[in-house]
Amino acid sequence: MTYGARVLYAFDGGAGGDWAVTGMTTLAGESLPAARGLSVRPGERAPAAGTVWTLSGVASHLRYTLREEFAALSARGSPLGRGEARRAALIPISKSEAWWALAQDERRRIYEEQSRHTSIGMEYLPQVARRLHHGRDLGEPFDFLTWFEFAPEHEGMFDELLARLRASEEWRYVSREIDIRLTRAL
Amino acid sequence: MTYGARVLYAFDGGAGGDWAVTGMTTLAGESLPAARGLSVRPGERAPAAGTVWTLSGVASHLRYTLREEFAALSARGSPLGRGEARRAALIPISKSEAWWALAQDERRRIYEEQSRHTSIGMEYLPQVARRLHHGRDLGEPFDFLTWFEFAPEHEGMFDELLARLRASEEWRYVSREIDIRLTRAL
Repeated sequence: MTYGARVLYAFDGGAGGDWAVTGMTTLAGESLPAARGLSVRPGERAPAAGTVWTLSGVASHLRYTLREEFAALSARGSPLGRGEARRAALIPISKSEAWWALAQDERRRIYEEQSRHTSIGMEYLPQVARRLHHGRDLGEPFDFLTWFEFAPEHEGMFDELLARLRASEEWRYVSREIDIRLTRAL
Repeated sequence: MTYGARVLYAFDGGAGGDWAVTGMTTLAGESLPAARGLSVRPGERAPAAGTVWTLSGVASHLRYTLREEFAALSARGSPLGRGEARRAALIPISKSEAWWALAQDERRRIYEEQSRHTSIGMEYLPQVARRLHHGRDLGEPFDFLTWFEFAPEHEGMFDELLARLRASEEWRYVSREIDIRLTRAL
């Protein structure tokens, strides 16, 4: 599949699923109802029985990433679904109206030149694999859903990555954020 | 309302509506079934009886426009719904997979530095008012729906604007385009 194709994904929280929820921390804004398990599915398929909430988003084209950055990310990155990646995190985020009222060059400047979002993320490759999903145009409760997978021994690294991003200028525009930690149930 | 807020719009083609269809020309890709009239409505409201097809999209944040360009556009632009604007056009467009596989800087370069999309559009302000709607993330048949309004005496200007854009490098990536011309029915 060509990079940039639109694929809809849904994340179902509920009584069970492919992943067991080990923690749910609300960092900003309204929380989500508790869930014991989580599953990821193609958005077109029906949710599993016992689903309490569903979050959806589309994996799609690049919004801020430059060709040079994308080449570096692709060279260092790792795929989802690796056997050793028995831990995961789903981090739903929304940004403020002030963020969305900015022009493209202003958002890019905060995102990379000031906050080094791509550069920081790159330091944690290939250990932390990720996929970004966009929910804003869909009218979803979260603008972004980021899905991360890593081996249990890399959870400390992952926490460090989040701490650095959360200290950045960009995070001043985050109005809602929930950190859902998971361990593979199968 | 702050600029950048997400608003869903739907365009219903059918037997009648607020606008009478005076022409439908398919420039690239598959055509749409014929319609005699068209109405624009907030996306949450139900379609009118007699609707043959509905196209939806969200008016949302800026994707390529820089702050400086947006300031110039805002200074020269005109609102929709002017009394003299008794002509309109709805132009649904999709772009190719090759376009969506490009990085942000490559798309911006083609869009503005090579094709001068914003600069050309600016020459036709304030006569031609417009609103852009995004359908791609929604999984709609068209990536973009652009709605234009102008006075009858400015239809020639509008045709010139389209001819210039269609001759640009950016238009090599247009895989589907339909030009629907309208006159106010009320």
